[in-house]
Amino acid sequence: MLPSFSDVRDAAARIAPYAVVTPVLRSELVDARVGTSVWFKCENLQRGGAFKFRGATNAVWSLSDEDAVRGVVTHSSGNHGNALAMAARTRGIPAHVVVPEGAVKAKVDAIIAAGATIHRCAATTAAREAAAADVMAATGANLVHPYADARVMAGQGTLVPELLRQAPGIDTLLFPVGGGGLASGCSIAAHGIDPGIVLFGAEPEGADDAARSLEADERVGPFTPQTICDGLRTLIGEPNFHALRDHQVHVLRVSDAEVVSAMRLLWSELRVVVEPSSATTLAALLRYPERFAGRSVGVVITGGNVDLDALPW
Amino acid sequence: MLPSFSDVRDAAARIAPYAVVTPVLRSELVDARVGTSVWFKCENLQRGGAFKFRGATNAVWSLSDEDAVRGVVTHSSGNHGNALAMAARTRGIPAHVVVPEGAVKAKVDAIIAAGATIHRCAATTAAREAAAADVMAATGANLVHPYADARVMAGQGTLVPELLRQAPGIDTLLFPVGGGGLASGCSIAAHGIDPGIVLFGAEPEGADDAARSLEADERVGPFTPQTICDGLRTLIGEPNFHALRDHQVHVLRVSDAEVVSAMRLLWSELRVVVEPSSATTLAALLRYPERFAGRSVGVVITGGNVDLDALPW
Repeated sequence: MLPSFSDVRDAAARIAPYAVVTPVLRSELVDARVGTSVWFKCENLQRGGAFKFRGATNAVWSLSDEDAVRGVVTHSSGNHGNALAMAARTRGIPAHVVVPEGAVKAKVDAIIAAGATIHRCAATTAAREAAAADVMAATGANLVHPYADARVMAGQGTLVPELLRQAPGIDTLLFPVGGGGLASGCSIAAHGIDPGIVLFGAEPEGADDAARSLEADERVGPFTPQTICDGLRTLIGEPNFHALRDHQVHVLRVSDAEVVSAMRLLWSELRVVVEPSSATTLAALLRYPERFAGRSVGVVITGGNVDLDALPW
Repeated sequence: MLPSFSDVRDAAARIAPYAVVTPVLRSELVDARVGTSVWFKCENLQRGGAFKFRGATNAVWSLSDEDAVRGVVTHSSGNHGNALAMAARTRGIPAHVVVPEGAVKAKVDAIIAAGATIHRCAATTAAREAAAADVMAATGANLVHPYADARVMAGQGTLVPELLRQAPGIDTLLFPVGGGGLASGCSIAAHGIDPGIVLFGAEPEGADDAARSLEADERVGPFTPQTICDGLRTLIGEPNFHALRDHQVHVLRVSDAEVVSAMRLLWSELRVVVEPSSATTLAALLRYPERFAGRSVGVVITGGNVDLDALPW
C-alpha cells in the first residue's frame, strides 16, 4: 500500500490551501565545508514547525465527509500528533493523540494548544498501538498512522516537487529516516519526476534500524533506540522499508555528537531553529563528503520543535 | 542627504544579484495574541544574518571603479561590519572594520571570517569615528557609515517593496530604531509606494534617543545606552532623525524584559534565530496592541546573530 507519484500530485493539490510553501536556504560556509552545493528545504518553517503537516493534512482531507465527522486518532512522540491536531482543525473535526512518555514537552504543549485530546501511554510501539486501538474502539475515529499510511507518505512527498521548482539543479536528495514516511514519500516523488535523482537517508547510530534492514535485505525487529534524535526513535514501517529498498536509498549513520555539532552549525549559519533529528542530514554531509562531491544536494530540514531551556550544547 | 524613493528603486536593482529575497513568515499564535495580522519579514535570513547586507552592498556597488580599489571602511558593533566585509568581497575589494569593545563575539568572528581587517577601539561614538578616520587617512578607503549614509539608507529601504509584493495587504510597518538607517530607508520606501502606510518604530527604554528626539522635536545628544539590544545602542543619526520626523514615525518604547520574552516567543513560534534588537518589534506589538488593532502589520526581523552559549533566558 505505497502511494504512486500520481497520489503525490493529488496530495499537493489537496494540501495547497493549508500548507506553507517553505523557503529554501543556503550557506556559503556549509557549501565550503562540505565541498558541494547544498539547498536546505526548511520544513521547520512549515505550519506546526515540521513537514508532518503535509501528510496529516492530506490524510484529513482524503476522508469522506461521513468518515471525517468521527475524527482522527494517531500515536506520535510529537510532531505528527501536533500536525494531525492542526490538520483536523482545518476541517473542524476532533483529533485524538496518543503520546508516549518521554516526548519533548514543547511538542506535547503544541498538541494541547492545537485542541487535540491527549492520551498518555508507555514509550513502546506496542503500547502506542494498543492505546490508539482503544481510542478507535471508543470513538470510531480514523487512524492516521504517522508513517505506514499511503496518504501520509504521499503528503510528505509533496515537498519534493516544490523543492525542485525552487532549486531546479538538484540531482541528489538527503533526508532523515525514522519511521520512513518522509523517506518513502520523497523517494516516490523524486523518482516520479526524475529516476536519475540519487537518494540518501541519514540515521543516528543509536537508531539505525533502516540501515540494518537494508543491509540484511529484510526489516529488522523492534529495538531500543539510544539517540538524542527524538523524532527518529521509531522502527521503520513495513511499506516504508519496501519503498526505501525499491528506490535504492543509501542510509548513512551519524553519531549523536555529530548531530549536536551539526545542529549548532545550522542554528548559527542558517539562523533557523532546528531539532536534533533534522541535523542528522548535515552531520552526514560532513562525515561522508566524498558521497556528495560535485553534486547538487537538496536537504530536508524536517522540524524545529525543541525545548529552548534544554539545548544540547 | 536623504535618499529618494528613486534611489531605493535603483538600489534594489543594484543589489539584486547578491542579496537574498528573504521569506515572510506568519504565526497564528502571534496573530491571536496581538489581535491583528502580522507578517514577519525575515532579514535574519539575509546573507550575513541581517538586513545590513542590503545597504552595504548598495554602497559598495555605488562606488566608481577608481574609488572602489582603495576599499571601504566602517565602524560597527557587528552586523554592519560583517555586511560591509561580505559586500566588499562580492566586488573583490578590501574592507576595514572598526569594532568597539563589548561587541557580540559571534558578530566579530563573522567579520573576521568574511575577510575584513579588524581595528579595535573603545565603545564610544567618538572613539569609533576617530579610529575610522585614522584608517581612511592611512589607506584612502571609502567610509561607509552604518546609517548616516544615503546609499546605506536606500539599500535598507529595498526590503519594503519586496515585502509589499510578498504581502500586498500590509498597511502598517514596524521596525526597530537604532541609528535609523533601516527606519529612514523603510520610511522613504513605504511612502514612495503608498503615503497612507502608517509607520512605527520600536526602541528599548534604555536607548530611547529617537523617541526622546521626536518628542523634543530636535535630536538629543550622546547618551549611555542601557539595553540588551546590542544593535540599538547608537544615537540616531542626524539625517535619519529628519527622515523619521518627516515621515511621522511613531516610536514605541519597550523594556529589556519584554524584549527577552518576545525574542523567545519568536524562536519558538517562527522557529528562527532572532537577536534581541529584532524582538523589540514583537515586544511593541504585545505592549501596545491597541495601536495595531484591525491593521495588517509588516514587521522587520532585522537580524539573527547571537552567541548561542549566552541566551538571555
